[in-house]
Amino acid sequence: MKREGIIMMAMLFILSAKSQTSLQKLYPVSFSNVKITDAFWKPKMQTVASATLDACVNYTQNKTGRIRNFENAAKHTGKHEGIYYDDSDVYKAIEAIAYSLKNYPDSELEKNTDQWIEKIAAAQLPDGYLNTYYILTDINKRWSDMEKHEDYCAGHLIEAGIAYYNTTGKGKLLNTAIRFADHIDSVFRLQNKPWVSGHQEIELALMKLYHHTQNKKYLALANWFLEQRGHGYGKGVIWNQWKNPDYCQDGIPVKDQRNITGHAVRAMYLYTGAADVAAVTGDNGYTTAMDAIWNDVVYRHLYITGGIGAQGSNEGFGKPYDLPNGTAYCETCASVGMVFWNQRMNMLSGDAKYIDILERSLYNGALDGLSLSGDRFFYGNPLSSGGNYSRSEWFGTACCPSNIARLVSALGNYIYSTSADGLWINLFVGSNATVALNNEKINMTMETGYPWKGKVKLEIAPDKKKYFDVHIRIPGWLNHPVPGDLYRYESSNTEKPEIHVNGQPFSYKLVNGYAVLSRTWKKGDLITLEIPMKVKRIKSNPAVRQNEGRVALQYGPIVYCVEGESKEYNSKNVILPPGAAIEVKYEPSLLGGINVLHFNAPVVTINEDGLSVSTTNRPVSAIPYYSWNNRGSRDMQVWLPSQIRQIRINE
Amino acid sequence: MKREGIIMMAMLFILSAKSQTSLQKLYPVSFSNVKITDAFWKPKMQTVASATLDACVNYTQNKTGRIRNFENAAKHTGKHEGIYYDDSDVYKAIEAIAYSLKNYPDSELEKNTDQWIEKIAAAQLPDGYLNTYYILTDINKRWSDMEKHEDYCAGHLIEAGIAYYNTTGKGKLLNTAIRFADHIDSVFRLQNKPWVSGHQEIELALMKLYHHTQNKKYLALANWFLEQRGHGYGKGVIWNQWKNPDYCQDGIPVKDQRNITGHAVRAMYLYTGAADVAAVTGDNGYTTAMDAIWNDVVYRHLYITGGIGAQGSNEGFGKPYDLPNGTAYCETCASVGMVFWNQRMNMLSGDAKYIDILERSLYNGALDGLSLSGDRFFYGNPLSSGGNYSRSEWFGTACCPSNIARLVSALGNYIYSTSADGLWINLFVGSNATVALNNEKINMTMETGYPWKGKVKLEIAPDKKKYFDVHIRIPGWLNHPVPGDLYRYESSNTEKPEIHVNGQPFSYKLVNGYAVLSRTWKKGDLITLEIPMKVKRIKSNPAVRQNEGRVALQYGPIVYCVEGESKEYNSKNVILPPGAAIEVKYEPSLLGGINVLHFNAPVVTINEDGLSVSTTNRPVSAIPYYSWNNRGSRDMQVWLPSQIRQIRINE
Repeated sequence: MKREGIIMMAMLFILSAKSQTSLQKLYPVSFSNVKITDAFWKPKMQTVASATLDACVNYTQNKTGRIRNFENAAKHTGKHEGIYYDDSDVYKAIEAIAYSLKNYPDSELEKNTDQWIEKIAAAQLPDGYLNTYYILTDINKRWSDMEKHEDYCAGHLIEAGIAYYNTTGKGKLLNTAIRFADHIDSVFRLQNKPWVSGHQEIELALMKLYHHTQNKKYLALANWFLEQRGHGYGKGVIWNQWKNPDYCQDGIPVKDQRNITGHAVRAMYLYTGAADVAAVTGDNGYTTAMDAIWNDVVYRHLYITGGIGAQGSNEGFGKPYDLPNGTAYCETCASVGMVFWNQRMNMLSGDAKYIDILERSLYNGALDGLSLSGDRFFYGNPLSSGGNYSRSEWFGTACCPSNIARLVSALGNYIYSTSADGLWINLFVGSNATVALNNEKINMTMETGYPWKGKVKLEIAPDKKKYFDVHIRIPGWLNHPVPGDLYRYESSNTEKPEIHVNGQPFSYKLVNGYAVLSRTWKKGDLITLEIPMKVKRIKSNPAVRQNEGRVALQYGPIVYCVEGESKEYNSKNVILPPGAAIEVKYEPSLLGGINVLHFNAPVVTINEDGLSVSTTNRPVSAIPYYSWNNRGSRDMQVWLPSQIRQIRINE
Repeated sequence: MKREGIIMMAMLFILSAKSQTSLQKLYPVSFSNVKITDAFWKPKMQTVASATLDACVNYTQNKTGRIRNFENAAKHTGKHEGIYYDDSDVYKAIEAIAYSLKNYPDSELEKNTDQWIEKIAAAQLPDGYLNTYYILTDINKRWSDMEKHEDYCAGHLIEAGIAYYNTTGKGKLLNTAIRFADHIDSVFRLQNKPWVSGHQEIELALMKLYHHTQNKKYLALANWFLEQRGHGYGKGVIWNQWKNPDYCQDGIPVKDQRNITGHAVRAMYLYTGAADVAAVTGDNGYTTAMDAIWNDVVYRHLYITGGIGAQGSNEGFGKPYDLPNGTAYCETCASVGMVFWNQRMNMLSGDAKYIDILERSLYNGALDGLSLSGDRFFYGNPLSSGGNYSRSEWFGTACCPSNIARLVSALGNYIYSTSADGLWINLFVGSNATVALNNEKINMTMETGYPWKGKVKLEIAPDKKKYFDVHIRIPGWLNHPVPGDLYRYESSNTEKPEIHVNGQPFSYKLVNGYAVLSRTWKKGDLITLEIPMKVKRIKSNPAVRQNEGRVALQYGPIVYCVEGESKEYNSKNVILPPGAAIEVKYEPSLLGGINVLHFNAPVVTINEDGLSVSTTNRPVSAIPYYSWNNRGSRDMQVWLPSQIRQIRINE
């Protein structure tokens, strides 16, 4: 294609984007305008700010060669250490640091990060290219294998550059990122040279860059990357050796996709980017595809913990309804990706069902990736363990630690949104926020004991009296564990929380899962919401054979598990019969303060002779899934048998 | 390479072959000189002759398109039905029919087979090529993907041609096979055009053709095929897409191989062919390799049933000592291949250890592939089942039915051998045999109740008085389950059978596992052998984690299993404590007549409430592994826990 043609196409794209209407309904309030005061989350954010970031810095800078790679690349000497995508861990650590610095300023950490950024910038080639693996191995091979994560690393560089600029006002990393983005734009889109990203990420990053710079070429480039997929352009190990383009969602064009396939994190990042593009361009080809894919994920592939990606073999999706517990992969990063994608889907639709899933993945699947001490990490998050599985200090492929760190540090992003007609409350997290609604400032204060208690107090303080809607998410889990029929509560019930405004019952409409409170709001108005909190017994769709005859427990948004008590019982041998009375008790000194579920259960034990077994009723306690494996490596399971159908010995 | 060079190379090869000494020590007596009278085997051979061959004929000719493919190929019209290697099933069925006709003449079956052969011959192309898949799809693509089994099918055609000629004297199929072999020789070896067989088989077949025709070019071609491997010549799906030449033992040259890899049947056929070549050429490069590989198989990869190939994913070998029971693949064809290969290794070495393995694979792993009714087949033979696994009438890939049929029909091949200095008795199977020893005829009659009883009577009747050695295999299983330390008996013992000649105790040397009886033999001499038969409790090497704390039972060469009794116990919940008294009882009306092992065992059962379990002592019976799944689909296991270490509920 000639250059004229290319420019015309680019212009046409921009014009057509302009001529379309934005699909975005909700605008999330940035975490930088939200101060977390929450009893559940604030300690976790503090732990991330200290222990988790310490671990990330220490492993990035001292215990591995990730920073040395940049030093060597700047000098064009020395060997590349580690794996070809390791640059991304540096960028993700910087992004997490940037978010955390906003909440917890730390001049030493910032100074150290500035030094990293100097080294990163020094390694950039004159033409804008930046990837220590190719600079230190054979630069002539750059952009030859689409699976080698060059654009993935660029994406994380962009996210880090924006985050660091937003917190510190320092632009060096962002400029480096922009130069790399411009290099990529000139090498690929402007020459229309095919390039299928082997690990999606750059699309969502370019959309952040577009919003930050308002330069439409980044929007055009993000869209161009999306449209590259599914045409057989792929070249590299995924395509030529594995021959499985579905692994990276490249089997068919994104807009034609209807089912979830392949690598879970790749999928989440792809659809997050596609949602970001659709939000601006109004291209409902993407939303149509994603509606179907989302249903496929939630109706057939979702763990009750909000984890996704059942298989280790492809770090991704398996067959529908095939959800093994002991070998559940449920990568921490995939749950983080679920938070990203579901936020975007909510932003496009204004539908609370996406926040229901976001909340489930956040409080369970993602949070499980981080130890209570903040310095140990799960890469995979199985729903059952024989007792030999525990969190690690670090990983060869170290995507998860900085990913959970950046999620928790920027938790404020997921609580509030605005729309043309009002405010939206998505998560119940104690916080003070300042929100701009049609150019007028509204202060909000939320107080709650969630997820342990159901009471939420919300003070609305607009600068001036103002009529608008307050949309409060009514948790979907009150009546259904998740949309679709993958899971259901053992006993159905219809629960509707009570809402008071200034002490008076307020009758509300329920629209797309939100209670809509329309009135003129003034300073000092107090909304109280009482979410009924009960223990829920969950059953699986019979198609999930792994959960046949089993029950999982949930309280509020928290999924529970039983950890073994070495003298008392193995978690695998605890029966939870129908109708067992379950007592909920908050235990402030246990596992950082949790609601514990207590019940008496038949427990099967091996007699001392080793030749016989017996069943006794014993007191058993279930703890939040995210908190397991913080008292040593114990056996654990989420899905408890409700009756004994089969016994296996020594298996 | 020029034609002169090729001819010179071929001549050099033949010369060098001539200058080497044959490595062959033993010469198996052909089944055509052995009449089986055995109470164990004769009924099985009759069942194969009727029910099994009926099934093979019916599925080959009527229920699938295997014969139609030849009809269509002859007319060069119509679609190819089935899979590209389906021709081989027709050839293997003919081979099995040929062996069976020798024992059980059946003019109708022979006439039908003659009609098949007409169709096969009619489909052959003028240049000798014969493969219905390529003839009916795109003949220009023949010989383009080494994995497409063209040479594999040719190998089975050769085996069938020889077998059918030997039984019937009819040469049409053999001539067809020879024309195809000559085509292959001219296309590949004579042009030195690389070709790595994607599924080995042709090597052993060409060696049969060499012995049948005494034409050295087939020996040269067999050797050429062996030497093609391991040089990176491979082209086709295994090499270009899977990128795993080890799958078909093509990672390194055969003579450099020391460990077993890849697909089990391919490996067995390869090493059978290599042994056949080495036997003639004296090339100890192959024997050195195979000694090491055999040790790897037997010391680290062998199931107690003699089955091999732990994994379904590659139909082959997994990691050393990784021998899962429930998912054990143990393809029937791989056990058949173990019989072939171990016969050859015994033939080269005169060592009884190979027959020990042959016997184990034959009576357990291979025989399990065939139902007692003869018309149901296992493709894989796991050592434990939850009760949902049963034999099938047929398979899409139908290699196993005709393979077990041809093995059982030609069982006579494995009983007797000769060497320069005498006779060798390998298996204990009631039979009359006529053996030529240095051009003198010896009649032999064996009577035995083996494998249920240990007494063997052997009458030796040479035409003239003659001094020679009679080598009688002393079963290795008397003192060790198998060579190496993969398995051991729980209590060690040293047992030596008594041998009498004409009623007098005969003191014998033990050489390579054989009792050597040297004397002048005359008509009417009677050898009696009393093999001590006891129940053996087998333990695994602790490296086999799947068998930790478990015991298997063996009586004679027969490995046992427990099948569930629905009202009494699930086989998975039977404990076999140390020292449990086990009674052996022959039950003539059960499962075709078997020794049953009876014992009292603690059995874990689920109480009626479904919420508790208990242990009671119950009478349990174990049956021969090969006979399981002949009373409906029951749960089964071979390795019984000797104490309870762990319980799993509903898993």
